[in-house]
Amino acid sequence: MKPYIEWTKEELVAEKARLEQEFAEVKAKGLNLNISRGKPAAAQLDLTEGMLTVLSKNEDTFAEDGTDCRNYGVLTGIPEARKLIGDICEVSAENVIVYGNASLTIMFDTVARSFLKGVAGCTPWNKLDKVKFLCPVPGYDRHFGVTEYFGVEMINVPMTPEGPDMDMVEKLVAEDDAIKGIWCVPKYSNPQGYTYSDETVRRFANLKPAAKDFRIFWDNAYIIHHLYDDRQDHLLNIIEECEKAGNPDMVYEFVSTSKVSYPGAGIAALISSEANLKEAQEYMNFQIIGHDKLNQLRHVKFFQNLDGVMNQMKKHAEILRPKFEAILQVMDQELSGLDIASWTKPNGGYFISFDAMEGCAKKIVAKAKEAGLTMTGAGATYPYHNDPQDSNIRIAPSFPTPEELEIAGQVFVLSVKLVSVDKILESK
Amino acid sequence: MKPYIEWTKEELVAEKARLEQEFAEVKAKGLNLNISRGKPAAAQLDLTEGMLTVLSKNEDTFAEDGTDCRNYGVLTGIPEARKLIGDICEVSAENVIVYGNASLTIMFDTVARSFLKGVAGCTPWNKLDKVKFLCPVPGYDRHFGVTEYFGVEMINVPMTPEGPDMDMVEKLVAEDDAIKGIWCVPKYSNPQGYTYSDETVRRFANLKPAAKDFRIFWDNAYIIHHLYDDRQDHLLNIIEECEKAGNPDMVYEFVSTSKVSYPGAGIAALISSEANLKEAQEYMNFQIIGHDKLNQLRHVKFFQNLDGVMNQMKKHAEILRPKFEAILQVMDQELSGLDIASWTKPNGGYFISFDAMEGCAKKIVAKAKEAGLTMTGAGATYPYHNDPQDSNIRIAPSFPTPEELEIAGQVFVLSVKLVSVDKILESK
Repeated sequence: MKPYIEWTKEELVAEKARLEQEFAEVKAKGLNLNISRGKPAAAQLDLTEGMLTVLSKNEDTFAEDGTDCRNYGVLTGIPEARKLIGDICEVSAENVIVYGNASLTIMFDTVARSFLKGVAGCTPWNKLDKVKFLCPVPGYDRHFGVTEYFGVEMINVPMTPEGPDMDMVEKLVAEDDAIKGIWCVPKYSNPQGYTYSDETVRRFANLKPAAKDFRIFWDNAYIIHHLYDDRQDHLLNIIEECEKAGNPDMVYEFVSTSKVSYPGAGIAALISSEANLKEAQEYMNFQIIGHDKLNQLRHVKFFQNLDGVMNQMKKHAEILRPKFEAILQVMDQELSGLDIASWTKPNGGYFISFDAMEGCAKKIVAKAKEAGLTMTGAGATYPYHNDPQDSNIRIAPSFPTPEELEIAGQVFVLSVKLVSVDKILESK
Repeated sequence: MKPYIEWTKEELVAEKARLEQEFAEVKAKGLNLNISRGKPAAAQLDLTEGMLTVLSKNEDTFAEDGTDCRNYGVLTGIPEARKLIGDICEVSAENVIVYGNASLTIMFDTVARSFLKGVAGCTPWNKLDKVKFLCPVPGYDRHFGVTEYFGVEMINVPMTPEGPDMDMVEKLVAEDDAIKGIWCVPKYSNPQGYTYSDETVRRFANLKPAAKDFRIFWDNAYIIHHLYDDRQDHLLNIIEECEKAGNPDMVYEFVSTSKVSYPGAGIAALISSEANLKEAQEYMNFQIIGHDKLNQLRHVKFFQNLDGVMNQMKKHAEILRPKFEAILQVMDQELSGLDIASWTKPNGGYFISFDAMEGCAKKIVAKAKEAGLTMTGAGATYPYHNDPQDSNIRIAPSFPTPEELEIAGQVFVLSVKLVSVDKILESK
């Protein structure tokens, strides 16, 4: 296929008619498909069935140190759960606090705490005229939602396959002490599936922020979420790198088992320095007596250890891989060479990032919706839902079956082509 | 026994010597007993064993409406869990949001939200010079902890067996628009075990606060926690009364199953008006995708309905009642007539409130500690840990066995007598 842009007006008009015909046929099927959210499929959740009954008797409910997990207490999580999370993150159990079922809540509460009580003895953010966060874009909509909700000014930083533009990050944090944080999904990033390079991680660890209370919000949501055995990204350990750089307190790392065990009933954790965890605990100390330790114990007893977790992740990958491949294959086949889009081919994570021609994303998502395909709203991957180019679309292939994804792919590429042809025709 | 105050100096000196002898003997036993916290005993937690495996297969994990409880979603809780909590609180499921495992977290987050985002369109509390809360005293230390942490000025309001001094409450909230809330444990109050009278509840519902964003924090922690079948307190439904009074938005009610199922792994809920729940959801919407629905479903499947819950509460009462009676009996036997103390005899809840002679509480708690008995710190039942009379002590008899409680009772009354004799001797 040669690029659309090189087609004559007549060829494009004919193509448009053909595409409209095809689209009408697909639309007539009355499809109802959803590739909008990174939601695991039931088959993935079924993998964790054994966890339901791994604690089955009263005598099963005790932690290794004798703690009755049914009762009150243990603010930081049971030791064996802290160790399991520590093993996943390649840190010591002492660097881990295990919370409830959602890392989003830990992030939200961390921002709320910074506003209410301040960080490291600095002025609480709610007493400041202006608080800013750097937001690598495209990125995760729920991150941007948290900072928008609290009135934080968000500054876009372009993403590259190596991570955020570090020249820009270094310059901005050094210059402006109103910049208090940066949202990162460092491994198999949402939505690109990029993994920050070693250089990027080291540059993060060596940042010289003007604000003493600047923190990297390192959402390692896909830390072990590989799609392939033989093609796995490796991410440097930020906790270790920050220690080495003499900046141990500069990072909060967040992880969860939402996409390891259950999205609605996993365990989540904050990984950070001793000083940062102590500060977090001061808040928790008034907020809760202890998170659900039975569920923490269920996780440890079911997975046993890191090997158990990694085996589970392989099974997840076996379910997810064909889905990524199904939709990627349709895009490769139908869009390659037309020069109207680019997209990522990640080795892990839950998303594909798709860039259409400028000004086309909203129209494509609307077009797909017309034929029964729900996608993440265009703009969602940018702060304030504002994609300045209106070109990025996040594709989340985890929930439907591979067969459905092939159909979804067909609807999507038809929508992309139709909107793109229209745009090119306008300029002819 | 005649009151100590009427004893001669010689009699008191002899009594002191006798008590010191007894105390030395008890101390020599090297006891290690704890009646400091309202912590259920293992035997109570054992009652809920069936909940561990009530969801045992993948196909068990679906809510009545088909929701996969393992996956993301359902911000307000699954409908059947909302209904069960609604039945406990005598309100409609629509008045209920089910959260995670801790009502304390809901209360903390509600205060945090009020500071960050404001209530009902009013100025966020963090933009105000002064925020005040009324605190019925003695009361629950963790309530006071939350407001102290956020810098709220706490004003003591005396408790009576009918509830807080409502003349004072009415006057203060009408006069001072800095008063934004009041902490209440309206049924089997912590620590007295008092239940607010119908008149008190109606006066609460008909408050005319100067602050539009004044809210009653109605912590109904012991709503169904009776100790007796035949002696049960009844509390008017505050949600209904506030509606009747035209003040539907004036109250947040909090409940949990911490002392129904598991303290560490129960479910907790916020009960309020449509407008208040909508406001709470706006915050939750950024904080979490959904609380642990599997645990919500476990509760519904295990208890089935309100009858199931009430049956469980009877079993709890059978375990708790002898404990209350054991320690009350020692106090009755050893302290009656001496006129050095008074204490409550609740029909439910988890606590006994004990009032020693003025200036004696700290010394009594320290004395008891000397002999291996840990009690709630004196002062804990007051804001800022400051009991102006230094007389109130909270007794929490739930955790030890009845046999241990009898010993705990002996240590306690010895400590009370010793400190009281000293005080009276000083004045002779």
